[in-house]
Amino acid sequence: MKLHFVIAEAALELVPEPLWRESSVKRDAERRAQEAGSILLDRSVHHSAMLKLSDGYRRGRPDLVHLTLLNVTSTPLHQDGKARVYIHTLDDSVLEFGEGARPPKSYARFRNLMEKLLVERPESGLVSVRDATLPQLLKGMGTDYSAGLSVQGAPERLEALAGKLAQKKDPAVVVGGFPRGHFLPRDLKAFDTLVRIDERALDAHVVAARVVYEVEKATKDQR
Amino acid sequence: MKLHFVIAEAALELVPEPLWRESSVKRDAERRAQEAGSILLDRSVHHSAMLKLSDGYRRGRPDLVHLTLLNVTSTPLHQDGKARVYIHTLDDSVLEFGEGARPPKSYARFRNLMEKLLVERPESGLVSVRDATLPQLLKGMGTDYSAGLSVQGAPERLEALAGKLAQKKDPAVVVGGFPRGHFLPRDLKAFDTLVRIDERALDAHVVAARVVYEVEKATKDQR
Repeated sequence: MKLHFVIAEAALELVPEPLWRESSVKRDAERRAQEAGSILLDRSVHHSAMLKLSDGYRRGRPDLVHLTLLNVTSTPLHQDGKARVYIHTLDDSVLEFGEGARPPKSYARFRNLMEKLLVERPESGLVSVRDATLPQLLKGMGTDYSAGLSVQGAPERLEALAGKLAQKKDPAVVVGGFPRGHFLPRDLKAFDTLVRIDERALDAHVVAARVVYEVEKATKDQR
Repeated sequence: MKLHFVIAEAALELVPEPLWRESSVKRDAERRAQEAGSILLDRSVHHSAMLKLSDGYRRGRPDLVHLTLLNVTSTPLHQDGKARVYIHTLDDSVLEFGEGARPPKSYARFRNLMEKLLVERPESGLVSVRDATLPQLLKGMGTDYSAGLSVQGAPERLEALAGKLAQKKDPAVVVGGFPRGHFLPRDLKAFDTLVRIDERALDAHVVAARVVYEVEKATKDQR
């Protein structure tokens, strides 16, 4: 089994052109001696500029993506090469992390790495970047079972879901990489199942830690 | 049951006076328009200055403390008031987080909050700060069972440990808030038990997520 872990519709992107002349963006870019178009959109810095975005409530949260990513890559499952992580962004870029990838725990270093990747878009290396919608990504990775996690899904115990995933060859788990809201209809249709693992809405980084842990336990039980 | 979760000997402190005149520290303080003595020591920024510290390998990693903290406070167990978090620093300060505390997910905001707390040392509020060694902290909180987690401990399945903790009234779990090394002898003696929950050394933030999750499950089973 290899778990394909997808952080989907992630609130990770470079500052879009309509915001380049906003004062909070210009100040941040100058302070960091960067172009406005090559820095990450970040609500904690660009809040006032983001008020101009109609879907701003689900954008500009690289901090959440970072937390979620680390809760997958720091685990034994990932270190053993049994999990692979993908970040699918809201604007349909996919960052795929290779097996040895160990993303930086320092947020500033993570931010710098993401900016470099989104500007240079390398086609190979420890992290590769390409254009793909979520359905294209899931189809392309050849998954034999994909589960989206959402409060809109059918309630299922996480242990039961992990047991199913562990019996597949290339299962995919998809969590939303955004602070509020639900998966877009265009992406929902890509899942084999939509599951709710808790009574309440859990943060993506908490879901990531729990899913990986239960899959790790389920694959151990099978040995 | 209320779980007392302690991040111990944490690599979190203000820049110590002997490093105030180091160039990497001065540059950082100037850029942020702060005094050198009121910013957090951070290896990702002050690496060259930290080479002067003999125990630098276990200091200056507020990023790890942040990740670990969020993996406790974002959980249902904590949101339900059944977990309380403490950060005990290597230089024996204790930050105690009140029930409603929701530390910022943005690292920059977390850093600013920690700096304010360590400078002002409020005795009450959502987060209070006081002087205490780890043994003093554990004694003062009135715990009836304390488990330190370490690769030096006796192997035990996490589910079994969580089951024991869930049967106590005020169990304490202690994880190391440092990147490398082990608990200091002066602190080891404070634990009722020292447990190893995995074959390999896990990052503190991974341990935090797993412990809280298993305790949450164990307390649900008891209902």
